[in-house]
Amino acid sequence: PKSVAVIGASGEPGRPGYQFIRALLEFGYRGRLYPVNPEAPEEILGFRTYRNVRDVPDAVDFAFITVPAPAVPAVIGDCVAKGVAGVEIFTSGFREVGEEGRKLEREIVGLAKGKLRIIGPNCFGVYCPRGGLTLLPGARLSSESGDVAFISQSGGLALYFAWAATGCGLRFSKAVSYGNAADLNESDFLEYLGDDEETRVIAAYIEGVRDGSRFFRLARSLLGKKPVIVWKGGLSETSSRAVSSHTGSLAGEKAVWQAFSRQTGAVLVNDFEELLDAVLFFRQCRRNIGRRVAVVGGGGAVGVAAGDVCERVGLVVPVAPAGVQEQLRRMLPPVGTSTRNPFDVGAPVLPAPLFRRALEVLLGWDGIDAVIIDRIYLYGLEGLNGVPDRGCEERLEVLLDLQTKTAKQFVVVLEDLSTAADKIEVEVERRSAQQKLFASGIAFAPSLTRAAVALARVCGYYEQAREIAL
Amino acid sequence: PKSVAVIGASGEPGRPGYQFIRALLEFGYRGRLYPVNPEAPEEILGFRTYRNVRDVPDAVDFAFITVPAPAVPAVIGDCVAKGVAGVEIFTSGFREVGEEGRKLEREIVGLAKGKLRIIGPNCFGVYCPRGGLTLLPGARLSSESGDVAFISQSGGLALYFAWAATGCGLRFSKAVSYGNAADLNESDFLEYLGDDEETRVIAAYIEGVRDGSRFFRLARSLLGKKPVIVWKGGLSETSSRAVSSHTGSLAGEKAVWQAFSRQTGAVLVNDFEELLDAVLFFRQCRRNIGRRVAVVGGGGAVGVAAGDVCERVGLVVPVAPAGVQEQLRRMLPPVGTSTRNPFDVGAPVLPAPLFRRALEVLLGWDGIDAVIIDRIYLYGLEGLNGVPDRGCEERLEVLLDLQTKTAKQFVVVLEDLSTAADKIEVEVERRSAQQKLFASGIAFAPSLTRAAVALARVCGYYEQAREIAL
Repeated sequence: PKSVAVIGASGEPGRPGYQFIRALLEFGYRGRLYPVNPEAPEEILGFRTYRNVRDVPDAVDFAFITVPAPAVPAVIGDCVAKGVAGVEIFTSGFREVGEEGRKLEREIVGLAKGKLRIIGPNCFGVYCPRGGLTLLPGARLSSESGDVAFISQSGGLALYFAWAATGCGLRFSKAVSYGNAADLNESDFLEYLGDDEETRVIAAYIEGVRDGSRFFRLARSLLGKKPVIVWKGGLSETSSRAVSSHTGSLAGEKAVWQAFSRQTGAVLVNDFEELLDAVLFFRQCRRNIGRRVAVVGGGGAVGVAAGDVCERVGLVVPVAPAGVQEQLRRMLPPVGTSTRNPFDVGAPVLPAPLFRRALEVLLGWDGIDAVIIDRIYLYGLEGLNGVPDRGCEERLEVLLDLQTKTAKQFVVVLEDLSTAADKIEVEVERRSAQQKLFASGIAFAPSLTRAAVALARVCGYYEQAREIAL
Repeated sequence: PKSVAVIGASGEPGRPGYQFIRALLEFGYRGRLYPVNPEAPEEILGFRTYRNVRDVPDAVDFAFITVPAPAVPAVIGDCVAKGVAGVEIFTSGFREVGEEGRKLEREIVGLAKGKLRIIGPNCFGVYCPRGGLTLLPGARLSSESGDVAFISQSGGLALYFAWAATGCGLRFSKAVSYGNAADLNESDFLEYLGDDEETRVIAAYIEGVRDGSRFFRLARSLLGKKPVIVWKGGLSETSSRAVSSHTGSLAGEKAVWQAFSRQTGAVLVNDFEELLDAVLFFRQCRRNIGRRVAVVGGGGAVGVAAGDVCERVGLVVPVAPAGVQEQLRRMLPPVGTSTRNPFDVGAPVLPAPLFRRALEVLLGWDGIDAVIIDRIYLYGLEGLNGVPDRGCEERLEVLLDLQTKTAKQFVVVLEDLSTAADKIEVEVERRSAQQKLFASGIAFAPSLTRAAVALARVCGYYEQAREIAL
């Protein structure tokens, strides 16, 4: 938008009506800005204030509304009169608090119908780096634009997810916290993002769906085009209780959502971490990636653990053919290693040139689609056992380089090698390694289980897309 | 031990036979030390070397053996002749490499039988801070003694687990990497640790069991006395392959292990993170803790997510009685909150005095056993949204204080609020908060799901112990 009004603006730094303006400015909004509040001082942060949005001398494209709930209908009336095209209502106290709020919400929907579109109420609004908009509060979200979109019924989760995903390297096209979905709802956003060229992966946190059959059709139409990953909150009896007080939605049945996933290909996840991992893996992994993995571990227990978890989540760990085994046997030490798959290269500190040669053998094996790397030191070695070995940097470079030369997918397990308060330098190195992996198209997760679960989801998605295409 | 020999000692800093000596010294071993190797220089790190352990002029209590596998039988013969009571054999190349190695292993067991006890071969040995022993390599493990014991068939995992657990605040009584278990095996260690007064929680990573019925009896005898937590590697077909090349064990059937858990009360976990969480929660949680939890979240989606995950793992989230709801309603804002359980206190930044009063209400409710706290800012606030609010420190202090005054258990979800490379100061604060929580007896995990899974395991254990006691 080129011109926005903040209705309910405040001159007091502690109030949302002030913080929203500051957040917009800090985030980099460059359009015109009109603070509106009959009781505000003449200027807020250098912007002249107005008593009513109708008093603004220019056109207003968009308005942020943060007045108390009972005052919202009058404000909506003013916005309609002014010709504002869209509003975000941050205020809560509507459907989610009971009958009174429900009436109020119906009232504002009636006032807006056919004239302006509403996001919210009871939401944090839209994050769109390209448009200069951020979630409120959200001054510090990245101003870089990306290819992930997030539709969230929860404002807090929209923020947390944006932080966590950005930390991993992901960037957003759009994220929207839409709260009670009085007007624009999950289907509207899904339709928009499905057509949005900037968006490659769509994630959603949903508590209740307004128009189930439309949402189903939309999700189904995206299968094989853009992954849709859904964390459905409120599948249990306990959480249905919480849903109703949170966004006033009716939570759906578990079986209904499982059928939805089977029939549309939408990927269901169970928690915040699974959502994050799934988005990252869909973003990073090769299209149509298959389930056959090689596992390379620095130590025998890695292979044992990987075998267990891969089988549990439905990845396949094929036995290496004799030729591959023979090539590896010739280069690896004869004891303390294993060449069948899972592969034990003996130690997490193997020399980088050997690491490269071993990986090249695996990349030449056409029986696998991905290579999972675990407990190979790619960072933090010095901080741990006191024996200086800069090999970890070289091993990391080997991976970054080989990923550019292969159609197979590397998946790296980036454990916290130490969580001790006095070993923070290890974490600094870990994050730096993570950034490099991200930039090279490598997928990663902080545990073997999380990596395997996420990879299996991606493989399952493409399988389903292929089956339905047949 | 007061006197140890390192057989296979080396003067070259890159060799294990040198690193082991250095690691022992750095770790703080203060007894007598005799490097043994006919080809070594006269002194290594200031210690006079000997050609053969039999040449050592004083008694030798214990020997570390790191000579090549074919030379091990002769060394065992020498140790027996010298009257050494116990040895750790680090060398690999025995049972795990096939028939030849199997023969060699039988030979050393025969030589030692009735004369000296063997840990290994193919292991990293014993970590015992009180005795000045560390896993090799393991120079930088904590020299503080604690109450957690770890029995690990994998050397790498013993090290990783010691690092990760230490980072959380845990300390070890003993940890042992026992590799192929040619002589001393998991049952011997379990029996010893069951009687060990220093040890309160026993964790184990096991690939294969030598004497199933003895292990069963021992585990069963500890139910209700000391939790035994078992990560069984090799439950899948894929990983059985890896087990055989790792420690030459025969991996058992999944159903057998599930029955073992049901009948002995031993707690089965599925991966490294679950092992870590379980140990931490058993260490921190009140004995006999029940399944009824209150969930306190800063934002509505926390309650929704918590309801789902608690129900999935078998925790109970009872509806708060009218009196509790009424007390909370009087103190919390009327909108954007929920007082039924899960409790939404509105925002993660609520004022510390209000946080205290709300928690006091919950601690007075006799219908719950534990309080799970999620998405309440206890650290890192400034680093995230740019609004300075030192309230996070005060809220943390509230928790630390209240935990000392209640029989209920606090469980805190300590998410990485930001994983970005340029936000490392948030992680510094998180680790500092974690240390304080640990010291105050509060249980914590980095995700809601991990916290709920671990808490449910602890509750289930005490339930089982009570049932069997009836």
